[in-house]
Amino acid sequence: MSTKPVPDIVVARLPLYLRALTAMQSSGKTFVSSKEMAQWLGISSAQIRKDLSHFGEFGKQGMGYAVSELREKLRRILHLDREWPIVVIGAGHIGSAVAAYPGFASHGFRVCALFDNDPAKIGTSIAGLCVHDVRTLPEFVRAHGVRLAMLAVPAEAAQSVAELAVSAGILAILNYAPLNLMLPDHVRVENIDPALHLQHMTYYLG
Amino acid sequence: MSTKPVPDIVVARLPLYLRALTAMQSSGKTFVSSKEMAQWLGISSAQIRKDLSHFGEFGKQGMGYAVSELREKLRRILHLDREWPIVVIGAGHIGSAVAAYPGFASHGFRVCALFDNDPAKIGTSIAGLCVHDVRTLPEFVRAHGVRLAMLAVPAEAAQSVAELAVSAGILAILNYAPLNLMLPDHVRVENIDPALHLQHMTYYLG
Repeated sequence: MSTKPVPDIVVARLPLYLRALTAMQSSGKTFVSSKEMAQWLGISSAQIRKDLSHFGEFGKQGMGYAVSELREKLRRILHLDREWPIVVIGAGHIGSAVAAYPGFASHGFRVCALFDNDPAKIGTSIAGLCVHDVRTLPEFVRAHGVRLAMLAVPAEAAQSVAELAVSAGILAILNYAPLNLMLPDHVRVENIDPALHLQHMTYYLG
Repeated sequence: MSTKPVPDIVVARLPLYLRALTAMQSSGKTFVSSKEMAQWLGISSAQIRKDLSHFGEFGKQGMGYAVSELREKLRRILHLDREWPIVVIGAGHIGSAVAAYPGFASHGFRVCALFDNDPAKIGTSIAGLCVHDVRTLPEFVRAHGVRLAMLAVPAEAAQSVAELAVSAGILAILNYAPLNLMLPDHVRVENIDPALHLQHMTYYLG
């Protein structure tokens, strides 16, 4: 096992491996070869073996990987052996859809509150969650030790709201607003913008 | 300008450059240096210059890039100098939110219809769009020459619905279902799974 930092591009693939292993476990599979994983994921088996080798010895010669064992190991590596509370900022279409997404719980996440600045939304309930005044966000984040936020506010509000969240202790933001946030280096940001994905694909359509 | 295929990782960054240039143009900026672009995007200026050099000579020494000119060039490279009709398959929370997203139009895309298999949804209207029976998808795709689909159905339905769409002529799928689709090589797929992004970030939170 190397003591050098694992390249981020490798880290980015670990959740994919975990998702495949979870599906395999559900279907009763106990062992899987890197070749089967490769077919399942569209990633080469050499790449999979190399990625996993960053974290130790997993596969058994001729047996492949023990599905349950590798899955548990990946969960620990990704710090999913606990439950992460998340706040959703912005209770519009995207924020509401994200808050209602049933898949988070099984992935180690729990959306615990929504925030908005619209008086018509504050105090209402969306997907069983209370919509709070965004001005109370810092207090909530501190009180509940929240480290993760999903940001689904209009682009023009995103930077200032992100700064508010970070000032209260948020360390990672999944950003749905269509802009590049400028935040301190210790804050992780991942962006989801469907338009960018579509534009990436139209390049090839011509 | 090289005649070799441009690496996909470079293509993936072009929409980011386009988004930044569009924002700059809106704010009245006429020239931008690669250094300013770099600060805006959190990508090194050397990387930006190298990426753009795949497509010809853009910057003027001491002047930087002409915002409007580079923006138009990128729009042509990404084939956004036309309007792309899109079908949204799945009229649940995510499909509805995506269909209602106002940002697509300005990016060259037009959601033209939603499809679902739920009799209670078929025939209703979401975000001003008719929800059609998914069984009529192939007919619709062929009649309207649609090439792009956004797939927001449950994981267990996604593979068969994607195959149905591809059989009718869909060439690119933005997949919101949490699984890896297995489709012919000529079909482009991009995946959006917020749980994967969150798990990527928790690796670093520890």
